Amino acid sequence: MEKLEALKRLFPGKVDLSESERLRHGKDEGYPLARPVLAVVYPESVEDVQKALQWAREWEVAVIPFGAGTSLEGHLYPTREAISLDLSRMNRLLEVRPEDFLCVVEPGLTRKALNEALKGTGLFFPVDPGADASLGGMAATGASGTTTVRYGGMRQNVLALQVVLAGGEVLELGRPVRKTSSGYDLKDLFIGSEGTLGIITRLTLRLHPLPEHVHTLRVFFPGVEEAVEASYRVMATGLPVARLELLDELAMRALNRYLGAGFPERPALFLEFHASTEEALEAESTLALELMREAGALSVEAAKTEEERKRQWEARHQAYWALVHLYPGHHFVITDVAVPLSRLAEMVRYAQGLMAEMGLAGNILGHVGDGNFHTLVPVLPEAYPKAEAYAERLVKRALELGGTCTAEHGVGLRKKKFLPKEHGNALEWMRKIKALLDPEGLLNPGKVLDISPSPGYS
Amino acid sequence: MEKLEALKRLFPGKVDLSESERLRHGKDEGYPLARPVLAVVYPESVEDVQKALQWAREWEVAVIPFGAGTSLEGHLYPTREAISLDLSRMNRLLEVRPEDFLCVVEPGLTRKALNEALKGTGLFFPVDPGADASLGGMAATGASGTTTVRYGGMRQNVLALQVVLAGGEVLELGRPVRKTSSGYDLKDLFIGSEGTLGIITRLTLRLHPLPEHVHTLRVFFPGVEEAVEASYRVMATGLPVARLELLDELAMRALNRYLGAGFPERPALFLEFHASTEEALEAESTLALELMREAGALSVEAAKTEEERKRQWEARHQAYWALVHLYPGHHFVITDVAVPLSRLAEMVRYAQGLMAEMGLAGNILGHVGDGNFHTLVPVLPEAYPKAEAYAERLVKRALELGGTCTAEHGVGLRKKKFLPKEHGNALEWMRKIKALLDPEGLLNPGKVLDISPSPGYS
Repeated sequence: MEKLEALKRLFPGKVDLSESERLRHGKDEGYPLARPVLAVVYPESVEDVQKALQWAREWEVAVIPFGAGTSLEGHLYPTREAISLDLSRMNRLLEVRPEDFLCVVEPGLTRKALNEALKGTGLFFPVDPGADASLGGMAATGASGTTTVRYGGMRQNVLALQVVLAGGEVLELGRPVRKTSSGYDLKDLFIGSEGTLGIITRLTLRLHPLPEHVHTLRVFFPGVEEAVEASYRVMATGLPVARLELLDELAMRALNRYLGAGFPERPALFLEFHASTEEALEAESTLALELMREAGALSVEAAKTEEERKRQWEARHQAYWALVHLYPGHHFVITDVAVPLSRLAEMVRYAQGLMAEMGLAGNILGHVGDGNFHTLVPVLPEAYPKAEAYAERLVKRALELGGTCTAEHGVGLRKKKFLPKEHGNALEWMRKIKALLDPEGLLNPGKVLDISPSPGYS
Repeated sequence: MEKLEALKRLFPGKVDLSESERLRHGKDEGYPLARPVLAVVYPESVEDVQKALQWAREWEVAVIPFGAGTSLEGHLYPTREAISLDLSRMNRLLEVRPEDFLCVVEPGLTRKALNEALKGTGLFFPVDPGADASLGGMAATGASGTTTVRYGGMRQNVLALQVVLAGGEVLELGRPVRKTSSGYDLKDLFIGSEGTLGIITRLTLRLHPLPEHVHTLRVFFPGVEEAVEASYRVMATGLPVARLELLDELAMRALNRYLGAGFPERPALFLEFHASTEEALEAESTLALELMREAGALSVEAAKTEEERKRQWEARHQAYWALVHLYPGHHFVITDVAVPLSRLAEMVRYAQGLMAEMGLAGNILGHVGDGNFHTLVPVLPEAYPKAEAYAERLVKRALELGGTCTAEHGVGLRKKKFLPKEHGNALEWMRKIKALLDPEGLLNPGKVLDISPSPGYS
């Protein structure tokens, strides 16, 4: 094909046309469908990104930015002829400025690699979605995770972005300062835009002092409701909790089998406290424990060493893989609603009841300090529509309670149908902004929204 | 005038044409110029706001939303024929949901009235810019203040907005949840847009548990640099400081004279710590004190009672009025730069040196945990250009250091000239977004940016 020849000439040594790579780049970790992209391009600079976009405009081929491939909602599936712009070669840590509590990175750097490189500075980057996602991808999907209750998600920790627009123009958005009220906030418009408004080519990130003292607890409850109630009490005291994670009985069981661990198979809260002084930590943990007991905790285990602490959070992050391991040959539908905090217990109960009613067996994992929880539902391919129907009913209920269809996984392809209900006529204005910034619809087309209103929209 | 007759017919009992009110609404607290608006309209509902905009479109008259009139950068000055939309009658607290840590308010409610109404709920709204601003105005200017170092500013504490666009359409932006990654972030586009993109008619605000234990300190230093150094050390430990305010020697002197107080007339840090337990508070304050002493603190005073604490922060908030009182007949130029944290001491030194060089005597007040400080420069009217020249040089230096021209006061008219330098070609895209949302340029015209590039822009 002439266009592919042109692409190879443009990017010697930076194009992969192999079937396997083209397919790998046309799928993510959560969407059931995959389709090969036309080609995979590995830009090594902003200029490469600009050149790729120029080629795309010329040949009218779409461009899908690719970070680490860990997104979940169909962000990477090509809805039409598209190249994948794999940013993994743009993975440099450009600058660390410990004295300013910030660093500057390229988008392909992963969060774990960043924290590895920060060792010795006394600082860390807190946003932790579990997967070792790329920082550009995390900004693009508005990711958050286990530490958001204390440190915020990407939105709160990205100080500035460099983006390349569809037309090739490079914009610098935001400043390396802790606050500004200067002009319209375009930075936050690009955070969570999932590659549909521009390609992120550089990020200035806020870093935080490593906590001097850390205390990690596992608390087990007779039921999920008691666990949610306990988490609510922690939030209501204003305790500076850094992690507050719910794992239900099924999740604990899957972890035990997968890791050969001996956790009690009961609904659990995994908690972590960060403090600058040992006395503060002690007092705060003690208060938290009292609240847990009042809410009906059965037993408490404290991680005594750094090693044990690490193991506990690795276990939490393995919950998905534990399930995958237990259910070979299955697809996994992962839900991601958030509701106002007081409705969380009710919402979790609803999810459990609905799964029972529909004959599904899913794990529940929650960032409960944020009112956000996931259900991970393993199904055989033929039962996939049933799991999707479950996910849809869950979202509808969440929206009725004032919640959101997607707390931290983004919209991609799968959540698009819920946006009219969640945003009303604001969705039409999102479309207008998409049309303004990407009039030819070249950037990750079909994700977040369609340029023309979808049929169901009224 | 026919249009005024039409306006009065449309809004019986809600229009004020008096010279004094028209002039009061054409000025703010910081801009040197004032000019009467055509009329002041007091909407009482969203429908009233829509009707006013319809009238404005029909008669091609601009609309300037007005909260409490406490803005500083010329936000309220009519650059052409305009009515003022005074939202003070839309000041209801519509809903308090303590169990969700949120409330829903109309835009004219002030922050103090909100916190008064929240008494007894155990919750408070933390954003504190000093003035008793309206919450709609605070969102519109992206305000922050003394507690931002701990709780964030308006951007972090507005969960959802209702806005009316120039065309009369009502949008609901955001959801009453602690996190979401659903669709483009239009809410943050409106926060800080200073009434130029739409009129805020309802806000859903995040509330925080009142701290169980509070400790308030005043620490005095031989020089401003030592004070800034001490504040830097506090930030570097990750101590959960809730307020961290710098007042220079001149500010302390002005306060003593105005309040008849007996503060040491030395550069000071005013600090506050919030904690859930007494032990945590004790340990954290002790650590903070050690850091202060290491950085060269001369003396420390602790506020022992709630009453004394209140007096300390009231004193801080009186700093502006203390100066006004000391300099009758003067104008006051207030600067508002922020720089990366490590450049703050240098920047403060630069400001002091520059004032000395230019024969100006200004106070320095800083939200130093955020890298943000103000200089308050009293000048006689004939010396106003000199103070403006000082402010301009200060901004230029801040921008060179990677800072921002306006950390929390917004752009208004006065900061517009710095936006090309701060935002580069992103400014052109801000213009396009303004043109998309307000094609006739009816909403607070001339603020933040001009629809066509200004002559100096390249």
